Amino acid sequence: MTNYSAIENASHLLALVRLALAEDNPSGDVTTSLTIPPQTRGEAAVKCRSAVVVSGLALAQMAFLETDPTLTVVTEAADGDWLEPGRTLLTVSGRASSILSAERTALNFLGRLSGIATLTRQFVKLAEEAASKKGLPAPKILDTRKTTPGLRLVEKAAVRHGGGRNHRFSLSDGILIKDNHIQAAGSVGEALRRAKLSGPHHLRVEVEVDDLDQLQEALEAGCDIILLDNMTPALLTKAAEKTNSFHAPGPRRTLLEASGGINLKTISEVAVTGVDYISAGALTHSAPSADLGLDWT
Amino acid sequence: MTNYSAIENASHLLALVRLALAEDNPSGDVTTSLTIPPQTRGEAAVKCRSAVVVSGLALAQMAFLETDPTLTVVTEAADGDWLEPGRTLLTVSGRASSILSAERTALNFLGRLSGIATLTRQFVKLAEEAASKKGLPAPKILDTRKTTPGLRLVEKAAVRHGGGRNHRFSLSDGILIKDNHIQAAGSVGEALRRAKLSGPHHLRVEVEVDDLDQLQEALEAGCDIILLDNMTPALLTKAAEKTNSFHAPGPRRTLLEASGGINLKTISEVAVTGVDYISAGALTHSAPSADLGLDWT
Amino acid sequence: MTNYSAIENASHLLALVRLALAEDNPSGDVTTSLTIPPQTRGEAAVKCRSAVVVSGLALAQMAFLETDPTLTVVTEAADGDWLEPGRTLLTVSGRASSILSAERTALNFLGRLSGIATLTRQFVKLAEEAASKKGLPAPKILDTRKTTPGLRLVEKAAVRHGGGRNHRFSLSDGILIKDNHIQAAGSVGEALRRAKLSGPHHLRVEVEVDDLDQLQEALEAGCDIILLDNMTPALLTKAAEKTNSFHAPGPRRTLLEASGGINLKTISEVAVTGVDYISAGALTHSAPSADLGLDWT
Amino acid sequence: MTNYSAIENASHLLALVRLALAEDNPSGDVTTSLTIPPQTRGEAAVKCRSAVVVSGLALAQMAFLETDPTLTVVTEAADGDWLEPGRTLLTVSGRASSILSAERTALNFLGRLSGIATLTRQFVKLAEEAASKKGLPAPKILDTRKTTPGLRLVEKAAVRHGGGRNHRFSLSDGILIKDNHIQAAGSVGEALRRAKLSGPHHLRVEVEVDDLDQLQEALEAGCDIILLDNMTPALLTKAAEKTNSFHAPGPRRTLLEASGGINLKTISEVAVTGVDYISAGALTHSAPSADLGLDWT
Amino acid sequence: MTNYSAIENASHLLALVRLALAEDNPSGDVTTSLTIPPQTRGEAAVKCRSAVVVSGLALAQMAFLETDPTLTVVTEAADGDWLEPGRTLLTVSGRASSILSAERTALNFLGRLSGIATLTRQFVKLAEEAASKKGLPAPKILDTRKTTPGLRLVEKAAVRHGGGRNHRFSLSDGILIKDNHIQAAGSVGEALRRAKLSGPHHLRVEVEVDDLDQLQEALEAGCDIILLDNMTPALLTKAAEKTNSFHAPGPRRTLLEASGGINLKTISEVAVTGVDYISAGALTHSAPSADLGLDWT
Amino acid sequence: MTNYSAIENASHLLALVRLALAEDNPSGDVTTSLTIPPQTRGEAAVKCRSAVVVSGLALAQMAFLETDPTLTVVTEAADGDWLEPGRTLLTVSGRASSILSAERTALNFLGRLSGIATLTRQFVKLAEEAASKKGLPAPKILDTRKTTPGLRLVEKAAVRHGGGRNHRFSLSDGILIKDNHIQAAGSVGEALRRAKLSGPHHLRVEVEVDDLDQLQEALEAGCDIILLDNMTPALLTKAAEKTNSFHAPGPRRTLLEASGGINLKTISEVAVTGVDYISAGALTHSAPSADLGLDWT
Repeated sequence: MTNYSAIENASHLLALVRLALAEDNPSGDVTTSLTIPPQTRGEAAVKCRSAVVVSGLALAQMAFLETDPTLTVVTEAADGDWLEPGRTLLTVSGRASSILSAERTALNFLGRLSGIATLTRQFVKLAEEAASKKGLPAPKILDTRKTTPGLRLVEKAAVRHGGGRNHRFSLSDGILIKDNHIQAAGSVGEALRRAKLSGPHHLRVEVEVDDLDQLQEALEAGCDIILLDNMTPALLTKAAEKTNSFHAPGPRRTLLEASGGINLKTISEVAVTGVDYISAGALTHSAPSADLGLDWT
Repeated sequence: MTNYSAIENASHLLALVRLALAEDNPSGDVTTSLTIPPQTRGEAAVKCRSAVVVSGLALAQMAFLETDPTLTVVTEAADGDWLEPGRTLLTVSGRASSILSAERTALNFLGRLSGIATLTRQFVKLAEEAASKKGLPAPKILDTRKTTPGLRLVEKAAVRHGGGRNHRFSLSDGILIKDNHIQAAGSVGEALRRAKLSGPHHLRVEVEVDDLDQLQEALEAGCDIILLDNMTPALLTKAAEKTNSFHAPGPRRTLLEASGGINLKTISEVAVTGVDYISAGALTHSAPSADLGLDWT
Repeated sequence: MTNYSAIENASHLLALVRLALAEDNPSGDVTTSLTIPPQTRGEAAVKCRSAVVVSGLALAQMAFLETDPTLTVVTEAADGDWLEPGRTLLTVSGRASSILSAERTALNFLGRLSGIATLTRQFVKLAEEAASKKGLPAPKILDTRKTTPGLRLVEKAAVRHGGGRNHRFSLSDGILIKDNHIQAAGSVGEALRRAKLSGPHHLRVEVEVDDLDQLQEALEAGCDIILLDNMTPALLTKAAEKTNSFHAPGPRRTLLEASGGINLKTISEVAVTGVDYISAGALTHSAPSADLGLDWT
Repeated sequence: MTNYSAIENASHLLALVRLALAEDNPSGDVTTSLTIPPQTRGEAAVKCRSAVVVSGLALAQMAFLETDPTLTVVTEAADGDWLEPGRTLLTVSGRASSILSAERTALNFLGRLSGIATLTRQFVKLAEEAASKKGLPAPKILDTRKTTPGLRLVEKAAVRHGGGRNHRFSLSDGILIKDNHIQAAGSVGEALRRAKLSGPHHLRVEVEVDDLDQLQEALEAGCDIILLDNMTPALLTKAAEKTNSFHAPGPRRTLLEASGGINLKTISEVAVTGVDYISAGALTHSAPSADLGLDWT
Repeated sequence: MTNYSAIENASHLLALVRLALAEDNPSGDVTTSLTIPPQTRGEAAVKCRSAVVVSGLALAQMAFLETDPTLTVVTEAADGDWLEPGRTLLTVSGRASSILSAERTALNFLGRLSGIATLTRQFVKLAEEAASKKGLPAPKILDTRKTTPGLRLVEKAAVRHGGGRNHRFSLSDGILIKDNHIQAAGSVGEALRRAKLSGPHHLRVEVEVDDLDQLQEALEAGCDIILLDNMTPALLTKAAEKTNSFHAPGPRRTLLEASGGINLKTISEVAVTGVDYISAGALTHSAPSADLGLDWT
Repeated sequence: MTNYSAIENASHLLALVRLALAEDNPSGDVTTSLTIPPQTRGEAAVKCRSAVVVSGLALAQMAFLETDPTLTVVTEAADGDWLEPGRTLLTVSGRASSILSAERTALNFLGRLSGIATLTRQFVKLAEEAASKKGLPAPKILDTRKTTPGLRLVEKAAVRHGGGRNHRFSLSDGILIKDNHIQAAGSVGEALRRAKLSGPHHLRVEVEVDDLDQLQEALEAGCDIILLDNMTPALLTKAAEKTNSFHAPGPRRTLLEASGGINLKTISEVAVTGVDYISAGALTHSAPSADLGLDWT
């Protein structure tokens, strides 16, 4: 029943849309103003040319309405919907010139975000199928902070639309002690000791480990979550076993997160190693754009 | 001798970097402040884990210096350089805590932009090799307006770093009459007539055509540039022949641009059809992030 | 049928109006709050005291409505209209205190922009009359980049309202090689060669020349547009003849633009020299404000 | 010894300059990047082509340095200086491409502001000469709120550079009861009564009157300053006499300000009517731009 | 009949509210999104837990509506109202999740501003009671510039809601020569001479004095207002007597303002010393927050 | 060894300072420009008039340097220092006019933030003394989200300077299920069930309870932290005993936080009830300003 709707608050989205429109139209749409008389009206549909999980509808809608508040935009799908090729995401009608001036900005948002949602859905589905075959609970698919500068909130929303979950939004809302912190602090144990001594009481403590020795050190230091970095499925399985045997599983067992170069080829194997979470930067940094287009209807 | 350096003006880049840093660090880097004492110093290097064409060095540098002006950043490469795996892009030294707080933002910029530059270089190289084999001049590789909202200027710079050229930056600096304009105006000829009658004298007129009939109409109407949309290599070749025979080639021959779904598999074939330009949205909307990392040295 | 309406997009205008209102009212309208009770209502009209071509109505309207959304503003004219002295541009009714607080900002916008539109109309009319007498086509009147910082878009709209056309909006949307570029590049020919070699395919190339030798050089280098700078009418006529004889006139003849200190006294002579365009910085940098006032009705 | 230097604070000026540069250069200086190699260096001078009082040097300097911090700008004059035609205002040296990209923005600021300063100087000089001939103290020349939206602070600085003084900067820092306030309040006396009852103790009270009856009403109500609106020199003289006879002149005598359509033709007559101040909207709303240019040296 | 309503203009308030909401909710209300389904609706009331003078209702209303424009907010009181404990300030109904996400921001504004209004009312009441007992006119209670950075306009509005008056809003709209100015200028008399020589004609001149000698100097120099700094009630009484005897009281008598560490314990004594104004920084810099809460109804 | 220095990043502080300076000086410091010649130089010291814990030095320093970068500011103390009355916080020297224009803004920041730090120190000291007497560990003193809109980051830094710790910075970085959430969700248990099912893995779950029954429910549902709201010391003691007996104390025992109307009178009693944390809104919403002043030296 997770509902992060408050995240995508209207004023944040509006600022993004205005930035994008100003970037694409600093001093007028020359082509449209030359070729389309202001009184010409039209109706157009945004359709997908391949199957997609939709994300970004509010941004697309705003791109049209900020350009011309007299346009009528009707969404024919909802963020998170799976659409077959040829299906309509939204229709827009009114001044033809306004529709054309806003088209590219609307499509750029929808294309990028639906691309992320679609890729996330693929990760989630593969993980669920692999786990299901072995009768295991499926690990949750998480994003990372490897997002496009300025678009983090909407890209993380796209991950949710694709069925994934969000890791921390920023350096301020989560503790994740990474290899570089450990090296600067001296050891996994010392870094954890410092974090537990002075850390805010409302945050769990997560630490990244590279091998089973560090895992042991983290378990002994009383860590809440352990990120297993760049391990093979075999090693991940051993890590999960070691963690389970360290103290009996229960509501407060240390949580395990697998990370590092996981992709559509490796996700199925990782999904059955016993980890609780799998995080993948590729969801946001390397998702190809969804193939969408706008046509007069 | 093209030098668009003025495009990437410092205050624009700075605004992008500040936006990204604020997004990633709204109220402090909890992990680092807990684990790294302020007096700890360090030196780190950003290296590539696969071969890349570098882009975004100025943004990465700013990400470190905006976080902490006392850091020392040394670039070990230049935008546009081709680097083999393992090579260093830049080094940064000073307060370890500052380096870690800025790391992700710096890498997010470098990864995305170097990804675009690297993909562009692949397109350019394939086009040049294919043309060279047939003794033809290589068509220029162009980007499109299918860029990430807010990042258009730096993504278009990345295309140049990869050896590509820039199509128009916005709706305001170029005339490109697309299928939707033509449909609203009635015909290729009518749309061109309007644009030529009232268009700004400093802009050329480009029109998109779908078949040879529209091409003929565009040639007769006296168009400066013709975009051949979604044509097969065979059809592109016919279009080029038709254009060449319409009036003898010369400094003012109508220019031809191929576009529509061109990718690494099709670029070689398209490159030898006789068109002057090939534009590809994929350069910016679907380039996978370059694989980079920061480590203490 | 030129329609640049998209240029004057609402959010850009709103930002201008808010800036102006904040500047004029940082912490309250002391006089009005002391002398007019909030419940006092009124109706006022903005009239012109001399003949004007109207420009800036949307900004004036916004100045009232941003100050108090409960005001009713009715425009009694349209941008581009020619109004005789004493005619009403708009009426505003509602809270008297709000009307008075917004008055000066509304009038400052209307006065400046209508001043530009009115002066432009005078240039256009004189050029058309002079050309008409000789049975020649009238050259188009163009503005320049000599606009007030921050107001370029609305000042260029005012030029259109006065019947003029817009030269490039910025350094980014047109190529104009000026004397300083030529000097730095070495010669007209060398500067043109560079621009043609690497210039974006969607932009024409314009060069500024000071005499007939440079004109010849520009013609030979294959320039799209030639700006004839600071030439006497006699010299302009010779330049036009030389250009016409260089290659037969046609749809692709090199275009000619006269520029440099042209004013209401000289425009008629310049208009019959055979140039295609006349650009004048005075339209925007030295137009006196239109004489307007607001009175209770 | 008036020194308003704090008004022109650096961060306000910088914001203006950045706005202007962004407006003139949204995505690069195409011409310069095509024609001038980045390594080309140059030195240029900004000179006046007619006599001017200089204003705006800090803005011009910032326009160059914001474009390229490696440029060297040397001011050869100071704001407020009177320069003969051909004199140099500033020199700039460094990367030639940067100088050319910033040129127009720098000149637009200098031209507009020096135009205002120069016109103000003419008003001041005529008023001083006329008063001096009659052995009278010269009235002070004041600006108004009829300034260009967004540029009020720098335009009012230009008035000071020309030898004028500033009337209030905004609706918040002065009480001026105008005809429209009086009409809404019922009478001069009633409006003044309200202002004196509740007005902030740190502000004087000024009222606008149209004739001698209103003047009498204002004097009886105990007003600090009276603006005599649109009166002939003869009527202004009578108004001054009436005010002097109302109570003997002294340090607290009611001050008189003449206003309304005063220009270079009428200023001399108005200057000898006995008023203390003359305010003129024309100083800022209708000053022609100063004629300046940049050339390589 | 003072009405400063124009001060609290909607766009200024909106900017404050958006800043506050962004600060409190950079990437979503995690708790609410986890625990309250989006379809849950509710109605809540903001009540005071102790007696308050209300201030900030518009900001609270905006905090709810900016978070979710579909909420319904009904104000049950007006700024300036005195409310007994338990009374309702406003009710809000609609999506429960939106109400909870906006709650703290709304309460933070209302608490701080109502705290200021409540404290001001106490100062005003004590001064009026003390003066009334002695049959004297009550001095006006003024605020200072000792306000919270960013909140000056709304804090000064809160002072008015509590029955106080506003001293100058900024350094730009009033002349107040303080001890540090006097020391730098050399003497009270010299500082006043300079201010009177060149000061804007629309501003009165106020000077701060520490003792009766400086007071004498200020009176002789012809000052409009004198601030008596840090004087005991006995000394204030002497200062008032001296001022009255300097010239007979009348409409233009020099005004007196007492200031310096005045609090709820000393205000009554100061109120009967014969000064016209009492200013107190404590009104804004040390008012405890009003005790308010939101509960479901 | 907690070091949140990254929180107070320079660009955030700079934005605050610029906002404050613009608010206090929209169009110049009239008094200073009239009375202090620009060449006058001076040196001044900011001293405390009562004992304070210092906070806000960086903001004060920026206020001077943003006003005039040629000033020299020397800090004589560090944030977090306890200073006896009369001690110097910082000295500033250079242009006297610049020092005076920046004075109030610098003092407003220092006064407010040092007021918070000083009050926090009092809470911390009382809690430590009370606990020490009984041989108990002292509970940590926490702030809340009851901060001044726009100043949260610097006010929370002030709490740290006073020896307190920070509760969550915003709705985005912590889960705290409050009474209103519980009521909307149905019960403590149901709200906790939802949060544990879908909550981000990096955040602990905190719930607010009003009585021992709710406490029991929270313990059974497996909560990480329990906020005991508005309980008497006696009840807090019972709550702590109940929690301790629920499961043996250890590294993962449920943490307890006391909150609700805690002040300097009650803190000592609360500090010995066995809770781990005490949070107090008064630290930020009702701290009186520290008494500081600037004088020439």
